[in-house]
Amino acid sequence: MIEPVVLKGFRDSVPSQEIPKRRLITKLEGIFSLYGFSPIDTPALEYTNVLLGKGGGETDKQIFRFEDNGGRDVALRFDLTVPFARFVALHGSELSRPFKRYHINKVWRGENPQKGRYREFYQCDFDIVGVDNEYADSEILSTMDFCFRTIFSSDSSAYRFHISHRGLFNEFLDSLEVRDKSVEILRTVDKLRKIGRDEVLRLLSEETGSQDKAEKILSFISCDTSRPFLENLEYLEGLIGHESESSERLRAIYALLEQEGIASSFSLDSSITRGLDYYTGIVYETFLTGAPSIGSVCSGGRYNNLASLYTKESLPGVGSSIGLDRLLAALEDLHSPLLESRSSADVLIASEDKASSYEEDVRIAGRLRQEGIRCDIYPFNVKKMKAVYDYSGKNSIPLILFHNWKKERMLKDTRDQSSQTVTEEETVIAVRNKLSGPAGIQA
Amino acid sequence: MIEPVVLKGFRDSVPSQEIPKRRLITKLEGIFSLYGFSPIDTPALEYTNVLLGKGGGETDKQIFRFEDNGGRDVALRFDLTVPFARFVALHGSELSRPFKRYHINKVWRGENPQKGRYREFYQCDFDIVGVDNEYADSEILSTMDFCFRTIFSSDSSAYRFHISHRGLFNEFLDSLEVRDKSVEILRTVDKLRKIGRDEVLRLLSEETGSQDKAEKILSFISCDTSRPFLENLEYLEGLIGHESESSERLRAIYALLEQEGIASSFSLDSSITRGLDYYTGIVYETFLTGAPSIGSVCSGGRYNNLASLYTKESLPGVGSSIGLDRLLAALEDLHSPLLESRSSADVLIASEDKASSYEEDVRIAGRLRQEGIRCDIYPFNVKKMKAVYDYSGKNSIPLILFHNWKKERMLKDTRDQSSQTVTEEETVIAVRNKLSGPAGIQA
Repeated sequence: MIEPVVLKGFRDSVPSQEIPKRRLITKLEGIFSLYGFSPIDTPALEYTNVLLGKGGGETDKQIFRFEDNGGRDVALRFDLTVPFARFVALHGSELSRPFKRYHINKVWRGENPQKGRYREFYQCDFDIVGVDNEYADSEILSTMDFCFRTIFSSDSSAYRFHISHRGLFNEFLDSLEVRDKSVEILRTVDKLRKIGRDEVLRLLSEETGSQDKAEKILSFISCDTSRPFLENLEYLEGLIGHESESSERLRAIYALLEQEGIASSFSLDSSITRGLDYYTGIVYETFLTGAPSIGSVCSGGRYNNLASLYTKESLPGVGSSIGLDRLLAALEDLHSPLLESRSSADVLIASEDKASSYEEDVRIAGRLRQEGIRCDIYPFNVKKMKAVYDYSGKNSIPLILFHNWKKERMLKDTRDQSSQTVTEEETVIAVRNKLSGPAGIQA
Repeated sequence: MIEPVVLKGFRDSVPSQEIPKRRLITKLEGIFSLYGFSPIDTPALEYTNVLLGKGGGETDKQIFRFEDNGGRDVALRFDLTVPFARFVALHGSELSRPFKRYHINKVWRGENPQKGRYREFYQCDFDIVGVDNEYADSEILSTMDFCFRTIFSSDSSAYRFHISHRGLFNEFLDSLEVRDKSVEILRTVDKLRKIGRDEVLRLLSEETGSQDKAEKILSFISCDTSRPFLENLEYLEGLIGHESESSERLRAIYALLEQEGIASSFSLDSSITRGLDYYTGIVYETFLTGAPSIGSVCSGGRYNNLASLYTKESLPGVGSSIGLDRLLAALEDLHSPLLESRSSADVLIASEDKASSYEEDVRIAGRLRQEGIRCDIYPFNVKKMKAVYDYSGKNSIPLILFHNWKKERMLKDTRDQSSQTVTEEETVIAVRNKLSGPAGIQA
């Protein structure tokens, strides 16, 4: 006998997890389609040098890398950005410019598993490449807003987008004459939430060689995000000493968000710098009001060259990535209605004497399915109702349509234990009423 | 510069491939849900001994197997059946009995790539475990029928299910007193389509030591599949010499299919034996009338113990697997309407002067999206229409809503080159009419 275990850091998805996850993914796919993003997919396995670039470096230890049977050095993809860059370079001529894609699939990393961190997890990326202007920037933000508005049933107080611009911060460092230290400073600033103000101040003093500059940097990134966006923008311009391309871009994006009527969900937050060198324009993170400890659930920014490793074509772009597993964990904590129904079916048809009722049962099942109602048939003669309740319970099926040996048909609602007699003709309507009622939980 | 290549046997999925694939998968998922199957997922990577059982053997060379950074012997899953068995053994107590699951995801095999065969491909499996009776058998067949009826828009002449029963064949071999040779005989018979009658006859004569028995076997597996199901069943019972549990099960299943009104899509075909030892009851394959050369696109059968490697619990089951990539290739050849639309959006909004029209454009886009109409916005001022047509062409977007500098709005249909002026109020209805019209291709 082999022990049925999964690898450390990996996990199965049982129906009660997979059903809401599929529902969330389907919703997101629908929204990306509404905005004209196309789905793509890439192989799980690629040449290691394609995934790592020539160098490799730190990421190296974190990836699943091996020699395949043909002696090739291959690795499992560790994100969806690198494969996207390779993809655009390879298929360039058949893709439009701009090109808008989404990609929802698994990636693998060998890092040490921690709470909420796994070695196999989903990424959900959407990007617009081949355009660098405020319309594209605002469209990514609008798509994010549509996603979270949908997830939270139009309760816009449930989420908040914090946005900033890399250029703003760089211009500020210019004004302090410490721009040459920007990489170290960015990394330090990015740790603010983790290591606290005092430690950040100490490190910044070291890096800039000046306590005064360190305090100025700290005050730059500490703007009050509850203040109106444009007020914060003016405040930051004041600290920098002048307007600039970056602040003008932010102003233009904000104007478009206002025209769309969604501006009130966006805060200008100069503490958002995002660690990666990759970003060159706006950067953003998304926080859930009810789950602050979970951190950002959707982040991204503008970059000025996606695929420079693989092609000479310059491809500026802007994109965003939803942390699906983290978002699901947050929605779980928040008891989101989106995750409520984990049922495999809406109705379970069960009979005391299947042989005599089968024809009628499948006819009713057929009609219910025609109406889009998910219908399961219990495949045994019912001897004890307990077995049926156990089956419906484990599969979270709310309704049972029970056909007894007296040829009566009863519709039982397992949620409130109610029961009513129904004729074949009444069945579809009775089921529909139950599902759309106050306790209705149809997917 | 790194060459942007993918590994041999692997491939990207560009939007024109991924859009119809996603649509097919969504349709199938919907049907599985209508029948009460639950989705599950398992890790791509597992312990090698869990995937291979203790032995290993032939499959060994075909799998992607390596030592991970922690020194574990791991491999990429090569099918969804083995992980399902491991899954049921691991999560047994939280799953219902019977348990109905579907699983659509990628698997990996190191075999040499041939036309239509890849090292990474999708499998789409659905199974009912924990029950062994005619209801469960018929439900899998009914689900298959619903899938193909949906794919072929209710044209039931487009597909045909060929079914048989392992027991029938074994009983026949019993009657010839060659049951001890059944493994070799099954393998030979399975090659009929590939190597032809004469060669099969020669091999069978060798294996049974009798030309007469070889001819009898050949005539047993050559029953005329165009004859009515029950007539064939009686003919085969005649060859065996008696009725049996197997023929009774087939009769009972057929009666249920008749009650459901779908029996006419099923042929009894004694040449269906399926190579694998695994199957113990009914076995079946699915052929497309318009694409005979492509072979079976959906196959499966009944097995009497899914998870014996991992648990003492006996889990009989019945299941089926749709060859998604093969089915897609066939639908492509057949110019299926299901694959017709590969558009990233239904409408593209473009403007000569975005700055002045943006507010109106996003308002209209918002309204169209509210109606479920997929709407893309061209992110540049239009200088030449050619660029817009190029964009809509590469993304197969049928309609363009063009806002010119005179503030007129025109709805252009790229399919017939027609054009009409519309006011903002008329836009949604005009777009909807265009999409639902005779050339309507909305997803």
